[in-house]
Amino acid sequence: MPIEKVIIAEKLGQFTDPWNPRIIGELNGQHVKAVKLKGEFVWHHHDNEDEMFLVIKGTLAMAFRDRTVVVQPGEFIIVPRGVEHKPVASEETEILLFEPASTVNTGNLDNERTKKQLERI
Amino acid sequence: MPIEKVIIAEKLGQFTDPWNPRIIGELNGQHVKAVKLKGEFVWHHHDNEDEMFLVIKGTLAMAFRDRTVVVQPGEFIIVPRGVEHKPVASEETEILLFEPASTVNTGNLDNERTKKQLERI
Repeated sequence: MPIEKVIIAEKLGQFTDPWNPRIIGELNGQHVKAVKLKGEFVWHHHDNEDEMFLVIKGTLAMAFRDRTVVVQPGEFIIVPRGVEHKPVASEETEILLFEPASTVNTGNLDNERTKKQLERI
Repeated sequence: MPIEKVIIAEKLGQFTDPWNPRIIGELNGQHVKAVKLKGEFVWHHHDNEDEMFLVIKGTLAMAFRDRTVVVQPGEFIIVPRGVEHKPVASEETEILLFEPASTVNTGNLDNERTKKQLERI
C-alpha cells in the first residue's frame, strides 16, 4: 500500500462529537489522534503515559491543581505521566494528541466518559 | 518546575540553518523536533524508527523510490522504518518531526550531513 499523507482538516471534518478521539496515525507504538473538545473534561492522570496536546483551532485551557496553562493554535503542551490535569475548552477546540497506543482518555478513571475502542479514520 | 507550553513559531524563530533539527519536546522516549528544510536532503532509511513529518510552513516533497508525496501546512506524513526516502523543499520549509529519541537524521548513513548532538531549545 503506498504511503499517503494525512490532511488534518479532512480528518476533523469527519466527526462532530467532542471528547471522542479518533486515531489518524500510528508510529513507534504511539498514536496520533484527532479530537474535538467542548466544555470541561474530568480530572485524571495517566500512570504510564506522557501526553502531548497540539492545538489546531480554538483554545485549550489545561488545568493543573496549582495553575492553568492556556494553549492556542500553533502551540502544544506535554503533560507528564502522573500529573493530574483537566482539559477545558470554552469554545469548540480541535487538537492533535500524541501518546502511546496504550493511553485511555480518562487515565486512571473508568467512567461514562471513557472511550475504550477508538475509531480509526 | 511548572509545566510550560511550547510556542512552535517562537522555537522556529531561534535558528536559521536548514537540516539541523532542534529538540523542542520529549515524551515516552520520543522527541519532538523543529527543523527547517531548504533544497534536497539525501536518500536514506531508518532501520528501527518510523518518522512523522508535520508541515508548519512551506512545502515538503517527500520522495520515495516510486513516487513523491507533496505535504503542505496542516498535513503530515509518516514514513515507516525501512522505507527509503528523500525530503526535498524548493522553498524554505518548516516542519515538526516526531520520532524516537534514538533517531539520527541521516538514518543508515553517516556523512557530512549527519547531526549527532542535537541542541535542545
